[in-house]
Amino acid sequence: MTKYELYYWSGIPGRGEFVRLALEEAGVEYVDIAVTDNGDAKVVAGMKANVTEYPSFAPPYLKAGKLTIGQTANILLFLGEQHGLAPKSKQSRFWVHQLQLTFGDLVAEIHDAHHPIAASLYYEDQKAEAAKRTKNLREERLPKYLGYFDGILRRGGTGWLAGRRLSYADLSLFHVTEGLRYAFPNAMRRLEKKYRNLAPFQDRIASRPRVSGYLKSGRRQPFNTQGIFRHYPELDE
Amino acid sequence: MTKYELYYWSGIPGRGEFVRLALEEAGVEYVDIAVTDNGDAKVVAGMKANVTEYPSFAPPYLKAGKLTIGQTANILLFLGEQHGLAPKSKQSRFWVHQLQLTFGDLVAEIHDAHHPIAASLYYEDQKAEAAKRTKNLREERLPKYLGYFDGILRRGGTGWLAGRRLSYADLSLFHVTEGLRYAFPNAMRRLEKKYRNLAPFQDRIASRPRVSGYLKSGRRQPFNTQGIFRHYPELDE
Repeated sequence: MTKYELYYWSGIPGRGEFVRLALEEAGVEYVDIAVTDNGDAKVVAGMKANVTEYPSFAPPYLKAGKLTIGQTANILLFLGEQHGLAPKSKQSRFWVHQLQLTFGDLVAEIHDAHHPIAASLYYEDQKAEAAKRTKNLREERLPKYLGYFDGILRRGGTGWLAGRRLSYADLSLFHVTEGLRYAFPNAMRRLEKKYRNLAPFQDRIASRPRVSGYLKSGRRQPFNTQGIFRHYPELDE
Repeated sequence: MTKYELYYWSGIPGRGEFVRLALEEAGVEYVDIAVTDNGDAKVVAGMKANVTEYPSFAPPYLKAGKLTIGQTANILLFLGEQHGLAPKSKQSRFWVHQLQLTFGDLVAEIHDAHHPIAASLYYEDQKAEAAKRTKNLREERLPKYLGYFDGILRRGGTGWLAGRRLSYADLSLFHVTEGLRYAFPNAMRRLEKKYRNLAPFQDRIASRPRVSGYLKSGRRQPFNTQGIFRHYPELDE
């Protein structure tokens, strides 16, 4: 059994959470380096070009035996192949990856809604701009993205985004929706009334035995105002 | 021979250009739908969920025989496998894709520098915010990204980002640097003095016979102020 080590920042679900959900649903053992001693320092050290041939620009990255794989969607591509979290036909493999990359685009937009000027500045230093960008996110971008994913669920008719079985893209849709519910409870009440396949989908994923066990475990990091999905009441409806 | 059709907006290099460069370097025939009659209308029509099982959230997407593949990095993953534009070992395949996804992140940041509030508003409606975000791009983000890619070229010592042969990630670095030179000529003069592997790399790619032929051809769309890489003098140094 390959030994997995997930390298991601401590204290937030962040992009690491997409990887954690896949590892948990696959039922494979892994070490979440963030919660070991000096976790963040290990994350930084392991990205340096003098210690690895495959330095990441940013976490998360996964060490899998001798392999080092960075970028969320890339890690999921790997885990999908290894653990049956993606279909096997060529078209379906690329389709699931396409969906994952679209989640990646959405996540970047959600982050930048509270940090539209600079990731290195505090939210408090870009509040006026964040209010404008978040209004656009809630009113234009979220309907477009959620409508897209809702339509795929509806058309497929299987309860999953791709084919007859759960894939890593399903786990990612689950996490994005959970994050949006935390960040924008009012906007999401409105949007989930319109995009009616989302709520039953959330329940279906949350009730899977491994996911359910994980969500109740101490391994699940709660959402907070340090991560990608942030609840600032002034940014909701 | 599989017939390829690239679906992307007309009139800009945009994200489609990463795909065009790979197709051109691979020496495969393709139809660039953008430059056919009613190209943009065909791009929109082909994304609709009632005409395809695999609708894209946004272009580019590629039709390859019976396959439909969306998302730039995903298309390149496919073309890399099909046409020897990526190494074959597992670690190297994921490494090249990781680099490509990092280009994707950079490209999104470059776009949002001139559109920090909303992609659907004009630049003129978000000039003050664009000036702030672009300052951060030039002073913090570009040095971080270009330093990262420069370091990989330097360490590798082969002239390529991954191993001993050109990969699709190399073509993408070429295009990003070309775009940045167009958008921020002053900033890039400063940055290329610091990151000294970039300029010889550009020359090496530009002089490859197929790339060179393509760059001189009418198939190459010039940069302009409608695309991702925009030259607004007030946003440069």
